[in-house]
Amino acid sequence: MRSLLTYLVAAVVVAACVRGDRYHPADPGSRADTVVNRAETSANYWAQEAQAAINARLAHKESVKKARNVVMFLGDGMSVPTLAAARTLLGQRRGHTGEEDKLHFETFPTVGLTKTYCVNAQVPDSACTATAYLCGVKTNNGVIGLNAEVARGDCEASTDAGRHVESIAEWALADGRDVGIVTTTRVTHASPAGVYAKIANRTWEYDLSVALTGSDPERCPDIAYQLVHNHPGNKFKVILGGGRRNFVPDNVLDDEQRYGRRTDNRHLINEWNKDKEDRGVSHKYVWNREQLMSLKDDLPEYILGLFHRSHLPYHMQSNSARDPTLTEMTEIAIQSLSRNEKGFFLFVEGGRIDHAHHDNFAELALDETLEMDKAVARAAELLSEDDSLIVVTADHAHVMAYNGYSARGHDILGPSRDLDLDGVPYMTLSYTNGPGFRPHVNGIRPDVTAENDYEKLEWRAHVDVPRDSETHGGDDVAVFARGPHHSMFTGLYEQSQLPHLMAYAACIGPGRHACSGAAHALAQPVLLLSLLVLLTSLFQQ
Amino acid sequence: MRSLLTYLVAAVVVAACVRGDRYHPADPGSRADTVVNRAETSANYWAQEAQAAINARLAHKESVKKARNVVMFLGDGMSVPTLAAARTLLGQRRGHTGEEDKLHFETFPTVGLTKTYCVNAQVPDSACTATAYLCGVKTNNGVIGLNAEVARGDCEASTDAGRHVESIAEWALADGRDVGIVTTTRVTHASPAGVYAKIANRTWEYDLSVALTGSDPERCPDIAYQLVHNHPGNKFKVILGGGRRNFVPDNVLDDEQRYGRRTDNRHLINEWNKDKEDRGVSHKYVWNREQLMSLKDDLPEYILGLFHRSHLPYHMQSNSARDPTLTEMTEIAIQSLSRNEKGFFLFVEGGRIDHAHHDNFAELALDETLEMDKAVARAAELLSEDDSLIVVTADHAHVMAYNGYSARGHDILGPSRDLDLDGVPYMTLSYTNGPGFRPHVNGIRPDVTAENDYEKLEWRAHVDVPRDSETHGGDDVAVFARGPHHSMFTGLYEQSQLPHLMAYAACIGPGRHACSGAAHALAQPVLLLSLLVLLTSLFQQ
Repeated sequence: MRSLLTYLVAAVVVAACVRGDRYHPADPGSRADTVVNRAETSANYWAQEAQAAINARLAHKESVKKARNVVMFLGDGMSVPTLAAARTLLGQRRGHTGEEDKLHFETFPTVGLTKTYCVNAQVPDSACTATAYLCGVKTNNGVIGLNAEVARGDCEASTDAGRHVESIAEWALADGRDVGIVTTTRVTHASPAGVYAKIANRTWEYDLSVALTGSDPERCPDIAYQLVHNHPGNKFKVILGGGRRNFVPDNVLDDEQRYGRRTDNRHLINEWNKDKEDRGVSHKYVWNREQLMSLKDDLPEYILGLFHRSHLPYHMQSNSARDPTLTEMTEIAIQSLSRNEKGFFLFVEGGRIDHAHHDNFAELALDETLEMDKAVARAAELLSEDDSLIVVTADHAHVMAYNGYSARGHDILGPSRDLDLDGVPYMTLSYTNGPGFRPHVNGIRPDVTAENDYEKLEWRAHVDVPRDSETHGGDDVAVFARGPHHSMFTGLYEQSQLPHLMAYAACIGPGRHACSGAAHALAQPVLLLSLLVLLTSLFQQ
Repeated sequence: MRSLLTYLVAAVVVAACVRGDRYHPADPGSRADTVVNRAETSANYWAQEAQAAINARLAHKESVKKARNVVMFLGDGMSVPTLAAARTLLGQRRGHTGEEDKLHFETFPTVGLTKTYCVNAQVPDSACTATAYLCGVKTNNGVIGLNAEVARGDCEASTDAGRHVESIAEWALADGRDVGIVTTTRVTHASPAGVYAKIANRTWEYDLSVALTGSDPERCPDIAYQLVHNHPGNKFKVILGGGRRNFVPDNVLDDEQRYGRRTDNRHLINEWNKDKEDRGVSHKYVWNREQLMSLKDDLPEYILGLFHRSHLPYHMQSNSARDPTLTEMTEIAIQSLSRNEKGFFLFVEGGRIDHAHHDNFAELALDETLEMDKAVARAAELLSEDDSLIVVTADHAHVMAYNGYSARGHDILGPSRDLDLDGVPYMTLSYTNGPGFRPHVNGIRPDVTAENDYEKLEWRAHVDVPRDSETHGGDDVAVFARGPHHSMFTGLYEQSQLPHLMAYAACIGPGRHACSGAAHALAQPVLLLSLLVLLTSLFQQ
């Protein structure tokens, strides 16, 4: 009787047990043969890993010097899920399982999280976020270098100087330091524009775009114009990126025999050259990789490099004769700016992570992340931790998810080991929305792996919601910091605190400074006691 | 001629300008009337916010004492996107726009990120991750308290004591401290089991489940048995949660007149009582909220509370007479454990965030996050920052995304302001996979808002990939720390470092300890000089 009851109950619950439980499937990947890294099966391996990390944390001495140099790396759209996926790809390219690898900047001692919303946006764009992480002020979507009293596109409101906000580049210049910008996008694009522009609409990159939205480009000069003629852009020692079309008239051919876009007859590259000539400073305009690399041995004071009429191509689609890598541009920028003894502020953007995500091109988004990481690694090599602060962050998230439940080391760009309810595979990386939408066939999601082309570079991950461009995400982004006062960058905080924190470490700008003394409070008891020793000795002699 | 050309070019690019650019739509939400928080339009508002935060960071003194007490809060499946969505909901319930709010634990001074993969899993489960964050060792999916030499379900392999790993609870007990566990799931579920169990399969919560998978429950005792009879579970002063069915025979009615699931005739609640009687210690078993609350004035030494036969209900669906809140359970646990002068380790799990995500129930996932946050706030109130370390983290991520592009303060649980390419709305919160799948109708995604029921509690968010349970995510999760040595928890690191870091701060376990002297290196110059003062004085008298 007893055993009959037992078997009846067994019959009822057996399905649940074999499945695992209601929420969690029994895991076929738990077979011992799926363990790929044998050393990891030892408990000691993990204890040693942890103890070594604790020792490294304790051995690390945070510099309390002034940060002479500050380099800010911005991965546009580099969400937290992008990090884990990118490091897995990095490891797999090296022949590892991948998950255990780290990006270079993931080894930085301090991590924080920032909230990216803007004054009028729950999920922000790259313009208002640039104003936050470069000028320390949250504003409206689409607005750069102006406070949120200015609505997007309101030229008139933007002319009130009381609404202009200074960027950290201006604070650095005021202290006699130098400034440079490096990006894989147009140098007039939203993120780099945050370093120098005051503009009511991020799309006003050249004069005609201002006129087309009904505003007067004379009253509200475009972003390219501001970069060449206005403070602080006209003082930048290094400007490297794309966007040449915004600097050249629409009836003039550029270096690659393409017409520009300007309708005001201004050739801003020539005007940049003339401005430097008038000021009697050495300078050089370059438009391809070879020219840029040739500058290394004889650096002029000022460099303007515009390597493409629009954005630079994705690294995996680039032409190595024409297109410098982000690492090469970063290296030359640091070489140039390091000549100023007082230090510098350099902004480096991996700007096309965002574009690849918008297109649901997961592989390109990850590869662009790895390209930026290489540039970070090079900067970290060139600059001392003792006097150079490096901050790596993103402006906003994206809606790419890292789906379960593949076994360790599974191809991060391939289908999950798992099937959906209809027996159709799904990819480990997919998005909730974007152009990768595929309509169902007879109520069933099509098998995207049956297309047999998901290894192609521009294969779009599948999505739920059809959009011509995948959207940003409203989730927080990570901050990584190394160098003087890096520990100030931990915690969860408003993105607009970032320039204030960098300025604190660098002792520039209007806020509190690390070198004003208060930061050295710890040293005071030592000083007091030393004084006491001295006095005691003197008194008793 | 010139102006004709201008207008021709204009016609070509006007579409792009009005849209914004290829990737970023022109933003209807940038109208000034969408600015809801007027103070935020001032640049000074943000500068002051940042400067106040810098001052607070500098005023904060990190305790370098030994962490007498350690409380670990685990939000099961509490991904980084869950945090931003939960805080927005919190703010909106308070009548704010929401994005600017913070969860209580988001105010903690230190943030880190952990990598959650397991030895055989790219995207892990809650069993191997519990082994990581409680025992400091990564293992295989489904395995708890054993190293990765043990495949899931391999009873025989699990009997080798050399493969057992100790949890931080064992380190605390060895030091004479007390231990407690509190959860909204079954107390035998994967996360809390990580505190005490050594088991080759997380589903072996009661004896029959072991037998059903072909193993011998005598050879490999189930999790409930281990909690009552084995070290360290049999020494826990507080055990509060669900899962009563795993403690009661299948022919015996429990307190709510339901049969248990055990087939070995063991009544583990009675056996727990008897064990405490035999040891002559005061103890109390409770099964509903009223009984639990009545203990407050006369706490026994040992408390076992099993409030439901399986998991506790979601907070929003709970019965306040029967079900204690996570905050109430946490408060009683702290009250009880605080009686030990040597201190304690307490594990508190918000375990049903995970379940709600698996069901695509976004609102419930966020509300369970807020419930855990309330418990954190209460613990932070009861325990001094000076001697009590509080660590809040998650075991793994989920695949919920926070989609663009709603205006500030938009209902976080409602549709995005935006429409898809077919003019169909989509929700701000959606998942890449799970049971919320809806087949397309004539190639078009159905309008989930037309169902007009998305405000219902168990409304499933729409997804791309149909699954009966939404999957975990492979992205990193956040760590928040407060109390002694909290700054050790920043950086990006393996999840298995967490117990080693907690043990470091608490000076327990086999690894390096904060109180071994090295951590006080800063104090040495002061001591040396004091000695010098003393010697100088003595010598010269």
